[in-house]
Amino acid sequence: MQVPIYENILKSNDYLAEENQDLFNRERVFVVGILGSPGAGKTTLLEKTISALKNVNLRPAVLVGDLATSRDAERIQQHGIPCAQLTTGGACHLEAQQVNKALKDFDLKTIDILFIENVGNLVCPTGFKLGEHIRTVVFSIPEGDEKVEKYPATFQKADCIILNKIDYLTLQSFDVEKPKREAYALNPDLVWINCSCATGEGIEEWINYLKTAREKRLNENG
Amino acid sequence: MQVPIYENILKSNDYLAEENQDLFNRERVFVVGILGSPGAGKTTLLEKTISALKNVNLRPAVLVGDLATSRDAERIQQHGIPCAQLTTGGACHLEAQQVNKALKDFDLKTIDILFIENVGNLVCPTGFKLGEHIRTVVFSIPEGDEKVEKYPATFQKADCIILNKIDYLTLQSFDVEKPKREAYALNPDLVWINCSCATGEGIEEWINYLKTAREKRLNENG
Repeated sequence: MQVPIYENILKSNDYLAEENQDLFNRERVFVVGILGSPGAGKTTLLEKTISALKNVNLRPAVLVGDLATSRDAERIQQHGIPCAQLTTGGACHLEAQQVNKALKDFDLKTIDILFIENVGNLVCPTGFKLGEHIRTVVFSIPEGDEKVEKYPATFQKADCIILNKIDYLTLQSFDVEKPKREAYALNPDLVWINCSCATGEGIEEWINYLKTAREKRLNENG
Repeated sequence: MQVPIYENILKSNDYLAEENQDLFNRERVFVVGILGSPGAGKTTLLEKTISALKNVNLRPAVLVGDLATSRDAERIQQHGIPCAQLTTGGACHLEAQQVNKALKDFDLKTIDILFIENVGNLVCPTGFKLGEHIRTVVFSIPEGDEKVEKYPATFQKADCIILNKIDYLTLQSFDVEKPKREAYALNPDLVWINCSCATGEGIEEWINYLKTAREKRLNENG
């Protein structure tokens, strides 16, 4: 019974995700999905990203998914940008419908890049499109260098992979080339960025990637 | 449509979990569920636990859940104990039926403690009983000190919480008392252990906890 029901849910979700993306295209908002385990550093990366985008005159906004609490949204809101919290009440991923509802609180004309930070989970959000143009997976040194091999679907569907907390390499063994090689084998077109929100390593590369990907997408949409 | 379907799946799973636990009780096998995010250190903790249990003449066995690959089971098998891999093919949690099938490969009469290591995921395994007697959640310093607050159901349903990689406190700020206080507020009966598989801190306390919990359970079952 399980599989067909799950497929129906996904089909309906995909339809709503397309509607979301149509809206984003009309309003010329570039949308970036952010996925990763609890503690991978998604919210901290977004905080660094917000400051850096303001410096290049791009106006960010953030939708934050969580099981409970609005902690992450409160952190983001301190940066004075549009932000909303999607609390799933225990569900393990965001769905397109939740994103669609939350958008009604945003003035999309004032937003250049919208980030959708998913619930902390390296598995379940993978199958659910939200309407995002690109998807970034954040994973971190303390999680171990076998994560690409163990969670292949998540990494295969990523456009960009942020290997975060690269400064933790001083504390543990981690073969950076191994997950990178495995990720490129799954998806040769992806962009891989080593990053540390503590030292700032990789942030400029990440901002340049976002700018380029956004411009490319806006040109495609005419 | 979603919610009632999910409930039906859980009900059928709970029934099979009870059957598993009846079997464990008949065979006097004490069963410990292990939950945690990818990279929390579940498999490394199990490796340390296996060695320590042998020293106190308890015979361990391990069932390992993963999306793909048998990496973790291979690591465990090197310790020369009964071990099986449950590959979920992308599903985000183990279910009781998978455990039941895997048990057919085990001679339960030769096992004192069976560990079931769930798929790396702090959310989805929470709702699915497998027949375990106690449940341990492993979370680690790099994940951040707000994890109890953000994933309350997982911590509320734990009997024991291992705060792992306590040696990483040298590298980052983390208020140990905060998640501990929040966890006890959710569940006053839980056991909290600070642990480092690198330095060995907390392993003796964990082994003593397992011994005591096992003896209590065996006495209850007569």
